[in-house]
Amino acid sequence: MTEPGLYEAMSTLRAVRRLRPDPIPADVLERVLQAATWAPSGGNRQPWRMIVVREAAAKQRLAELYAERWKRFGAGYEKLMAGMPPAAAAASRKMLDAGDFLADHFHETPAIVVFCFDPREMAITDRKLERISVVGGGSVYPAVQNLLLACRAEGLGCTLTTLLCECEDEVRTLLEIPEGWGTACAIPIGYPRGKGHGPIRRLPVAKMAFGDRFGQPLG
Amino acid sequence: MTEPGLYEAMSTLRAVRRLRPDPIPADVLERVLQAATWAPSGGNRQPWRMIVVREAAAKQRLAELYAERWKRFGAGYEKLMAGMPPAAAAASRKMLDAGDFLADHFHETPAIVVFCFDPREMAITDRKLERISVVGGGSVYPAVQNLLLACRAEGLGCTLTTLLCECEDEVRTLLEIPEGWGTACAIPIGYPRGKGHGPIRRLPVAKMAFGDRFGQPLG
Repeated sequence: MTEPGLYEAMSTLRAVRRLRPDPIPADVLERVLQAATWAPSGGNRQPWRMIVVREAAAKQRLAELYAERWKRFGAGYEKLMAGMPPAAAAASRKMLDAGDFLADHFHETPAIVVFCFDPREMAITDRKLERISVVGGGSVYPAVQNLLLACRAEGLGCTLTTLLCECEDEVRTLLEIPEGWGTACAIPIGYPRGKGHGPIRRLPVAKMAFGDRFGQPLG
Repeated sequence: MTEPGLYEAMSTLRAVRRLRPDPIPADVLERVLQAATWAPSGGNRQPWRMIVVREAAAKQRLAELYAERWKRFGAGYEKLMAGMPPAAAAASRKMLDAGDFLADHFHETPAIVVFCFDPREMAITDRKLERISVVGGGSVYPAVQNLLLACRAEGLGCTLTTLLCECEDEVRTLLEIPEGWGTACAIPIGYPRGKGHGPIRRLPVAKMAFGDRFGQPLG
Protein backbone atom coordinates (compact mmCIF):
# COMPACT_ATOMS: atom_id res chain seq x y z
CA MET A 1 0.00 0.00 0.00
CA THR A 2 1.21 3.53 -0.73
CA GLU A 3 0.69 5.62 2.38
CA PRO A 4 -1.24 8.80 1.50
CA GLY A 5 -0.05 12.19 2.75
CA LEU A 6 -1.50 13.39 6.03
CA TYR A 7 -3.29 16.43 4.62
CA GLU A 8 -4.57 14.47 1.63
CA ALA A 9 -6.14 11.90 3.97
CA MET A 10 -7.69 14.51 6.27
CA SER A 11 -9.13 16.65 3.49
CA THR A 12 -10.85 13.73 1.74
CA LEU A 13 -12.19 11.87 4.79
CA ARG A 14 -15.95 11.86 4.42
CA ALA A 15 -18.78 9.86 5.96
CA VAL A 16 -19.20 6.81 3.70
CA ARG A 17 -22.49 5.11 4.51
CA ARG A 18 -22.92 2.78 1.51
CA LEU A 19 -20.62 -0.15 2.20
CA ARG A 20 -20.06 -3.51 0.54
CA PRO A 21 -20.30 -6.69 2.65
CA ASP A 22 -16.90 -7.98 1.45
CA PRO A 23 -14.62 -8.88 4.37
CA ILE A 24 -11.65 -6.75 5.40
CA PRO A 25 -8.29 -8.56 5.11
CA ALA A 26 -6.66 -9.18 8.51
CA ASP A 27 -3.54 -7.12 7.75
CA VAL A 28 -5.63 -4.12 6.67
CA LEU A 29 -7.79 -4.34 9.79
CA GLU A 30 -4.67 -4.64 11.96
CA ARG A 31 -3.21 -1.41 10.51
CA VAL A 32 -6.47 0.47 11.09
CA LEU A 33 -6.67 -0.71 14.71
CA GLN A 34 -3.01 0.04 15.32
CA ALA A 35 -3.49 3.61 14.07
CA ALA A 36 -6.13 4.06 16.78
CA THR A 37 -3.76 2.82 19.49
CA TRP A 38 -1.23 5.54 18.59
CA ALA A 39 -3.54 8.35 19.72
CA PRO A 40 -2.74 10.43 22.80
CA SER A 41 -4.81 10.14 25.99
CA GLY A 42 -4.75 11.86 29.38
CA GLY A 43 -1.69 10.66 31.31
CA ASN A 44 -1.16 8.10 28.49
CA ARG A 45 -3.66 5.86 30.29
CA GLN A 46 -5.36 4.71 27.07
CA PRO A 47 -8.64 4.28 28.97
CA TRP A 48 -10.51 2.81 25.99
CA ARG A 49 -10.86 -0.43 24.05
CA MET A 50 -12.27 -1.47 20.67
CA ILE A 51 -14.65 -4.36 20.09
CA VAL A 52 -14.57 -5.47 16.46
CA VAL A 53 -17.99 -6.99 15.82
CA ARG A 54 -18.03 -9.42 12.89
CA GLU A 55 -20.33 -12.18 14.22
CA ALA A 56 -23.59 -12.26 12.25
CA ALA A 57 -25.97 -12.53 15.24
CA ALA A 58 -24.34 -9.65 17.11
CA LYS A 59 -24.35 -7.44 14.00
CA GLN A 60 -28.01 -8.29 13.45
CA ARG A 61 -28.93 -7.14 16.96
CA LEU A 62 -26.86 -3.95 16.66
CA ALA A 63 -28.56 -3.29 13.33
CA GLU A 64 -32.03 -3.58 14.88
CA LEU A 65 -31.11 -1.21 17.70
CA TYR A 66 -29.52 1.20 15.23
CA ALA A 67 -32.42 1.17 12.76
CA GLU A 68 -35.02 1.98 15.46
CA ARG A 69 -33.03 5.03 16.48
CA TRP A 70 -32.15 6.10 12.95
CA LYS A 71 -35.83 6.11 11.99
CA ARG A 72 -36.65 8.45 14.85
CA PHE A 73 -33.64 10.66 14.06
CA GLY A 74 -34.56 10.78 10.35
CA ALA A 75 -38.14 11.82 11.11
CA GLY A 76 -36.89 14.67 13.30
CA TYR A 77 -34.44 15.74 10.63
CA GLU A 78 -37.13 15.82 7.93
CA LYS A 79 -38.96 18.42 9.99
CA LEU A 80 -35.80 20.56 10.28
CA MET A 81 -35.30 20.36 6.51
CA ALA A 82 -38.61 22.07 5.87
CA GLY A 83 -37.04 25.30 7.19
CA MET A 84 -33.74 24.99 5.29
CA PRO A 85 -32.63 26.86 2.15
CA PRO A 86 -32.89 24.59 -0.96
CA ALA A 87 -29.13 23.83 -1.24
CA ALA A 88 -28.86 22.80 2.42
CA ALA A 89 -32.05 20.77 2.15
CA ALA A 90 -30.69 18.95 -0.93
CA ALA A 91 -27.42 18.10 0.87
CA SER A 92 -29.40 16.89 3.89
CA ARG A 93 -31.60 14.75 1.63
CA LYS A 94 -28.51 13.04 0.21
CA MET A 95 -27.19 12.43 3.72
CA LEU A 96 -30.54 11.04 4.90
CA ASP A 97 -30.80 8.70 1.90
CA ALA A 98 -27.30 7.37 2.58
CA GLY A 99 -28.21 7.10 6.27
CA ASP A 100 -31.31 5.06 5.35
CA PHE A 101 -29.09 2.78 3.31
CA LEU A 102 -26.70 2.34 6.23
CA ALA A 103 -29.56 1.59 8.63
CA ASP A 104 -31.02 -1.00 6.22
CA HIS A 105 -27.63 -2.67 5.68
CA PHE A 106 -25.96 -2.19 9.08
CA HIS A 107 -25.88 -5.95 9.71
CA GLU A 108 -24.13 -6.55 6.36
CA THR A 109 -21.21 -4.31 7.28
CA PRO A 110 -18.12 -6.55 7.48
CA ALA A 111 -16.97 -4.97 10.76
CA ILE A 112 -18.54 -2.65 13.31
CA VAL A 113 -15.99 -1.22 15.71
CA VAL A 114 -17.52 -0.27 19.07
CA PHE A 115 -15.32 2.03 21.17
CA CYS A 116 -15.66 1.55 24.95
CA PHE A 117 -14.09 3.64 27.69
CA ASP A 118 -13.52 3.53 31.43
CA PRO A 119 -14.31 6.91 33.02
CA ARG A 120 -12.62 5.79 36.27
CA GLU A 121 -9.29 5.98 34.42
CA MET A 122 -9.88 9.57 33.29
CA ALA A 123 -9.16 12.93 34.92
CA ILE A 124 -12.35 14.67 33.80
CA THR A 125 -11.68 18.34 34.49
CA ASP A 126 -15.13 19.58 33.46
CA ARG A 127 -16.93 17.08 35.69
CA LYS A 128 -18.07 19.68 38.22
CA LEU A 129 -19.17 22.38 35.77
CA GLU A 130 -22.84 23.09 35.29
CA ARG A 131 -22.72 22.37 31.56
CA ILE A 132 -22.65 18.87 30.08
CA SER A 133 -19.22 17.20 30.27
CA VAL A 134 -17.12 16.47 27.18
CA VAL A 135 -13.56 16.16 28.49
CA GLY A 136 -13.70 12.37 28.92
CA GLY A 137 -14.08 12.29 25.14
CA GLY A 138 -10.65 13.90 24.88
CA SER A 139 -9.10 10.52 25.73
CA VAL A 140 -11.22 8.53 23.25
CA TYR A 141 -12.14 10.49 20.11
CA PRO A 142 -8.54 11.26 19.09
CA ALA A 143 -8.18 7.48 18.74
CA VAL A 144 -11.47 7.34 16.82
CA GLN A 145 -10.20 10.01 14.44
CA ASN A 146 -6.97 8.07 13.91
CA LEU A 147 -9.05 5.01 13.04
CA LEU A 148 -11.20 6.96 10.57
CA LEU A 149 -8.10 8.46 8.91
CA ALA A 150 -6.51 5.01 8.67
CA CYS A 151 -9.69 3.70 7.01
CA ARG A 152 -9.39 6.53 4.51
CA ALA A 153 -5.76 5.55 3.88
CA GLU A 154 -6.73 1.92 3.34
CA GLY A 155 -9.59 2.71 0.95
CA LEU A 156 -12.20 1.64 3.51
CA GLY A 157 -15.45 3.55 3.95
CA CYS A 158 -16.60 4.39 7.48
CA THR A 159 -18.67 6.84 9.49
CA LEU A 160 -18.68 7.88 13.15
CA THR A 161 -22.08 7.00 14.67
CA THR A 162 -23.22 7.62 18.24
CA LEU A 163 -26.90 6.62 18.08
CA LEU A 164 -26.23 3.29 19.80
CA CYS A 165 -25.02 5.11 22.94
CA GLU A 166 -28.70 5.80 23.63
CA CYS A 167 -29.23 2.11 24.32
CA GLU A 168 -25.91 1.42 25.98
CA ASP A 169 -27.33 -1.15 28.39
CA GLU A 170 -28.51 -3.37 25.54
CA VAL A 171 -25.15 -3.00 23.78
CA ARG A 172 -23.32 -3.75 27.04
CA THR A 173 -25.24 -6.97 27.56
CA LEU A 174 -24.77 -8.06 23.94
CA LEU A 175 -21.03 -7.39 23.83
CA GLU A 176 -20.35 -8.32 27.47
CA ILE A 177 -18.95 -4.89 28.30
CA PRO A 178 -18.15 -4.70 32.05
CA GLU A 179 -20.14 -2.50 34.41
CA GLY A 180 -18.47 0.87 34.83
CA TRP A 181 -17.43 1.07 31.17
CA GLY A 182 -19.29 3.27 28.68
CA THR A 183 -19.57 3.23 24.88
CA ALA A 184 -18.39 6.23 22.86
CA CYS A 185 -19.39 5.29 19.30
CA ALA A 186 -19.85 2.53 16.77
CA ILE A 187 -18.00 2.72 13.45
CA PRO A 188 -19.28 0.57 10.59
CA ILE A 189 -16.34 -0.17 8.27
CA GLY A 190 -16.27 -1.69 4.81
CA TYR A 191 -15.23 -1.11 1.23
CA PRO A 192 -17.36 1.59 -0.42
CA ARG A 193 -20.08 0.76 -2.93
CA GLY A 194 -19.62 4.06 -4.71
CA LYS A 195 -16.72 6.45 -5.00
CA GLY A 196 -16.15 6.45 -1.24
CA HIS A 197 -13.99 9.22 0.17
CA GLY A 198 -13.61 12.51 -1.69
CA PRO A 199 -14.35 16.23 -1.47
CA ILE A 200 -15.81 17.55 1.80
CA ARG A 201 -17.81 20.67 2.66
CA ARG A 202 -16.44 22.58 5.66
CA LEU A 203 -16.46 26.15 6.92
CA PRO A 204 -13.28 28.13 6.09
CA VAL A 205 -10.57 28.85 8.67
CA ALA A 206 -11.72 32.49 8.81
CA LYS A 207 -15.05 31.31 10.27
CA MET A 208 -13.62 28.60 12.54
CA ALA A 209 -10.63 30.40 14.09
CA PHE A 210 -10.45 33.65 16.05
CA GLY A 211 -7.56 35.76 17.29
CA ASP A 212 -7.16 36.31 21.07
CA ARG A 213 -10.90 36.80 21.69
CA PHE A 214 -14.00 34.88 20.58
CA GLY A 215 -15.39 36.46 17.40
CA GLN A 216 -12.28 38.52 16.67
CA PRO A 217 -10.60 37.95 13.27
CA LEU A 218 -7.37 35.96 13.44
CA GLY A 219 -5.36 38.64 11.65
CA MET B 1 7.15 21.43 3.06
CA THR B 2 7.21 17.69 2.36
CA GLU B 3 3.99 16.22 3.67
CA PRO B 4 4.73 13.22 5.93
CA GLY B 5 2.86 9.97 5.51
CA LEU B 6 -0.26 9.51 7.62
CA TYR B 7 1.03 6.57 9.66
CA GLU B 8 4.42 8.17 10.12
CA ALA B 9 2.77 11.29 11.59
CA MET B 10 0.44 9.30 13.88
CA SER B 11 3.11 6.96 15.21
CA THR B 12 5.50 9.77 16.16
CA LEU B 13 3.01 12.27 17.61
CA ARG B 14 4.01 12.72 21.23
CA ALA B 15 3.28 15.32 23.89
CA VAL B 16 5.97 17.99 23.46
CA ARG B 17 6.00 20.25 26.52
CA ARG B 18 9.31 22.11 26.12
CA LEU B 19 8.63 24.76 23.50
CA ARG B 20 10.62 27.70 22.16
CA PRO B 21 9.04 31.19 22.21
CA ASP B 22 9.79 31.80 18.50
CA PRO B 23 6.67 32.83 16.58
CA ILE B 24 4.86 30.50 14.19
CA PRO B 25 4.80 31.75 10.58
CA ALA B 26 1.31 32.69 9.39
CA ASP B 27 1.22 30.13 6.56
CA VAL B 28 2.21 27.30 8.92
CA LEU B 29 -0.42 28.31 11.47
CA GLU B 30 -3.04 28.52 8.71
CA ARG B 31 -2.32 24.94 7.58
CA VAL B 32 -2.56 23.65 11.15
CA LEU B 33 -5.90 25.40 11.71
CA GLN B 34 -7.23 24.27 8.35
CA ALA B 35 -6.42 20.64 9.21
CA ALA B 36 -8.66 21.01 12.27
CA THR B 37 -11.56 22.33 10.16
CA TRP B 38 -11.47 19.18 7.98
CA ALA B 39 -12.57 16.93 10.87
CA PRO B 40 -16.01 15.29 10.89
CA SER B 41 -18.72 16.38 13.35
CA GLY B 42 -22.26 15.22 14.05
CA GLY B 43 -24.52 16.28 11.16
CA ASN B 44 -21.50 18.25 9.83
CA ARG B 45 -22.52 21.08 12.18
CA GLN B 46 -18.93 21.93 13.17
CA PRO B 47 -20.16 23.10 16.60
CA TRP B 48 -16.73 24.30 17.73
CA ARG B 49 -14.32 27.22 17.24
CA MET B 50 -10.65 27.87 17.95
CA ILE B 51 -9.27 30.93 19.72
CA VAL B 52 -5.61 31.42 18.90
CA VAL B 53 -4.18 33.27 21.89
CA ARG B 54 -0.97 35.18 21.09
CA GLU B 55 -1.50 38.41 23.09
CA ALA B 56 1.00 38.61 25.97
CA ALA B 57 -1.46 39.68 28.69
CA ALA B 58 -3.97 36.94 27.84
CA LYS B 59 -1.23 34.29 27.74
CA GLN B 60 0.06 35.52 31.09
CA ARG B 61 -3.36 35.09 32.69
CA LEU B 62 -3.88 31.64 31.15
CA ALA B 63 -0.40 30.68 32.42
CA GLU B 64 -1.29 31.70 35.99
CA LEU B 65 -4.51 29.71 35.91
CA TYR B 66 -2.71 26.74 34.37
CA ALA B 67 0.22 26.77 36.83
CA GLU B 68 -2.10 26.77 39.88
CA ARG B 69 -3.84 23.68 38.60
CA TRP B 70 -0.69 21.95 37.38
CA LYS B 71 0.89 22.29 40.83
CA ARG B 72 -2.09 20.58 42.41
CA PHE B 73 -2.14 17.87 39.73
CA GLY B 74 1.63 17.30 40.09
CA ALA B 75 1.37 16.89 43.86
CA GLY B 76 -1.37 14.28 43.43
CA TYR B 77 0.68 12.47 40.80
CA GLU B 78 3.77 12.33 43.03
CA LYS B 79 1.72 10.37 45.55
CA LEU B 80 0.60 7.92 42.83
CA MET B 81 4.23 7.43 41.76
CA ALA B 82 5.18 6.10 45.17
CA GLY B 83 3.22 2.94 44.35
CA MET B 84 4.54 2.49 40.79
CA PRO B 85 7.18 0.00 39.55
CA PRO B 86 10.55 1.77 38.95
CA ALA B 87 10.28 1.96 35.13
CA ALA B 88 6.79 3.49 35.27
CA ALA B 89 7.88 5.88 38.00
CA ALA B 90 10.87 6.99 35.92
CA ALA B 91 8.66 7.66 32.87
CA SER B 92 6.23 9.58 35.08
CA ARG B 93 9.09 11.62 36.54
CA LYS B 94 10.17 12.66 33.02
CA MET B 95 6.60 13.62 32.18
CA LEU B 96 6.21 15.62 35.40
CA ASP B 97 9.50 17.47 34.81
CA ALA B 98 8.42 18.40 31.29
CA GLY B 99 5.01 19.36 32.70
CA ASP B 100 6.70 21.63 35.25
CA PHE B 101 8.63 23.24 32.41
CA LEU B 102 5.42 23.81 30.46
CA ALA B 103 3.68 25.31 33.48
CA ASP B 104 6.62 27.65 34.12
CA HIS B 105 6.80 28.76 30.46
CA PHE B 106 3.13 28.59 29.43
CA HIS B 107 3.02 32.36 28.85
CA GLU B 108 6.07 32.18 26.52
CA THR B 109 4.36 29.72 24.18
CA PRO B 110 3.93 31.51 20.84
CA ALA B 111 0.31 30.34 20.45
CA ILE B 112 -2.22 28.70 22.76
CA VAL B 113 -5.20 27.34 20.86
CA VAL B 114 -8.34 27.15 23.00
CA PHE B 115 -11.09 24.94 21.55
CA CYS B 116 -14.65 26.08 22.37
CA PHE B 117 -17.88 24.25 21.60
CA ASP B 118 -21.60 24.88 21.59
CA PRO B 119 -23.48 21.94 23.13
CA ARG B 120 -26.78 23.33 21.80
CA GLU B 121 -25.58 22.39 18.31
CA MET B 122 -24.88 18.79 19.30
CA ALA B 123 -27.05 15.67 19.38
CA ILE B 124 -25.62 14.21 22.60
CA THR B 125 -26.93 10.65 22.64
CA ASP B 126 -25.49 9.74 26.05
CA ARG B 127 -27.02 12.79 27.74
CA LYS B 128 -29.64 10.81 29.64
CA LEU B 129 -27.43 7.93 30.78
CA GLU B 130 -26.42 7.66 34.42
CA ARG B 131 -22.72 7.75 33.62
CA ILE B 132 -20.80 10.91 32.76
CA SER B 133 -21.34 12.11 29.19
CA VAL B 134 -18.60 12.04 26.55
CA VAL B 135 -20.46 12.07 23.22
CA GLY B 136 -20.32 15.86 22.81
CA GLY B 137 -16.57 15.38 22.61
CA GLY B 138 -17.13 13.31 19.47
CA SER B 139 -17.78 16.54 17.55
CA VAL B 140 -14.71 18.37 18.93
CA TYR B 141 -11.75 16.07 19.67
CA PRO B 142 -11.49 14.66 16.13
CA ALA B 143 -10.69 18.26 15.12
CA VAL B 144 -8.23 18.54 18.00
CA GLN B 145 -6.48 15.37 16.84
CA ASN B 146 -6.26 16.74 13.28
CA LEU B 147 -4.64 19.88 14.68
CA LEU B 148 -2.13 17.86 16.72
CA LEU B 149 -1.25 15.70 13.70
CA ALA B 150 -0.82 18.81 11.56
CA CYS B 151 1.54 20.27 14.19
CA ARG B 152 3.52 17.05 13.99
CA ALA B 153 3.63 17.41 10.20
CA GLU B 154 4.84 21.01 10.45
CA GLY B 155 7.55 20.24 13.02
CA LEU B 156 5.65 22.06 15.78
CA GLY B 157 5.52 20.71 19.31
CA CYS B 158 2.17 20.62 21.12
CA THR B 159 0.23 18.82 23.82
CA LEU B 160 -3.47 18.39 24.58
CA THR B 161 -4.25 19.96 27.98
CA THR B 162 -7.61 20.09 29.73
CA LEU B 163 -6.67 21.54 33.13
CA LEU B 164 -8.03 24.99 32.20
CA CYS B 165 -11.54 23.54 31.80
CA GLU B 166 -11.68 23.47 35.60
CA CYS B 167 -11.76 27.28 35.62
CA GLU B 168 -13.85 27.75 32.53
CA ASP B 169 -15.62 30.85 33.86
CA GLU B 170 -12.31 32.74 34.20
CA VAL B 171 -11.23 31.62 30.72
CA ARG B 172 -14.62 32.62 29.31
CA THR B 173 -14.38 36.12 30.75
CA LEU B 174 -10.77 36.54 29.57
CA LEU B 175 -11.40 35.35 26.00
CA GLU B 176 -14.95 36.76 25.73
CA ILE B 177 -16.45 33.35 25.06
CA PRO B 178 -20.27 33.66 24.87
CA GLU B 179 -22.53 32.17 27.52
CA GLY B 180 -23.69 28.71 26.49
CA TRP B 181 -20.33 27.78 24.96
CA GLY B 182 -17.88 25.49 26.76
CA THR B 183 -14.13 24.95 26.45
CA ALA B 184 -12.77 21.53 25.48
CA CYS B 185 -9.01 22.00 25.78
CA ALA B 186 -6.07 24.36 25.39
CA ILE B 187 -3.17 23.40 23.11
CA PRO B 188 0.14 25.21 23.58
CA ILE B 189 1.98 25.16 20.23
CA GLY B 190 5.56 26.09 19.40
CA TYR B 191 8.80 24.80 17.94
CA PRO B 192 10.39 22.19 20.22
CA ARG B 193 13.44 23.00 22.35
CA GLY B 194 14.66 19.41 22.16
CA LYS B 195 14.07 16.62 19.65
CA GLY B 196 10.33 17.15 19.68
CA HIS B 197 8.20 14.36 18.25
CA GLY B 198 9.49 10.82 18.12
CA PRO B 199 8.90 7.31 19.47
CA ILE B 200 5.79 6.72 21.60
CA ARG B 201 4.87 4.08 24.19
CA ARG B 202 1.45 2.52 23.62
CA LEU B 203 -0.28 -0.78 24.40
CA PRO B 204 -0.28 -3.26 21.49
CA VAL B 205 -3.37 -3.92 19.35
CA ALA B 206 -3.80 -7.30 21.09
CA LYS B 207 -4.48 -5.45 24.36
CA MET B 208 -6.58 -2.63 22.86
CA ALA B 209 -8.87 -4.55 20.47
CA PHE B 210 -11.25 -7.44 21.12
CA GLY B 211 -13.26 -9.71 18.83
CA ASP B 212 -17.09 -9.69 19.11
CA ARG B 213 -17.10 -9.54 22.93
CA PHE B 214 -15.21 -7.43 25.48
CA GLY B 215 -12.10 -9.28 26.60
CA GLN B 216 -12.19 -11.85 23.79
CA PRO B 217 -9.09 -12.05 21.53
CA LEU B 218 -9.54 -10.52 18.10
CA GLY B 219 -8.52 -13.72 16.29
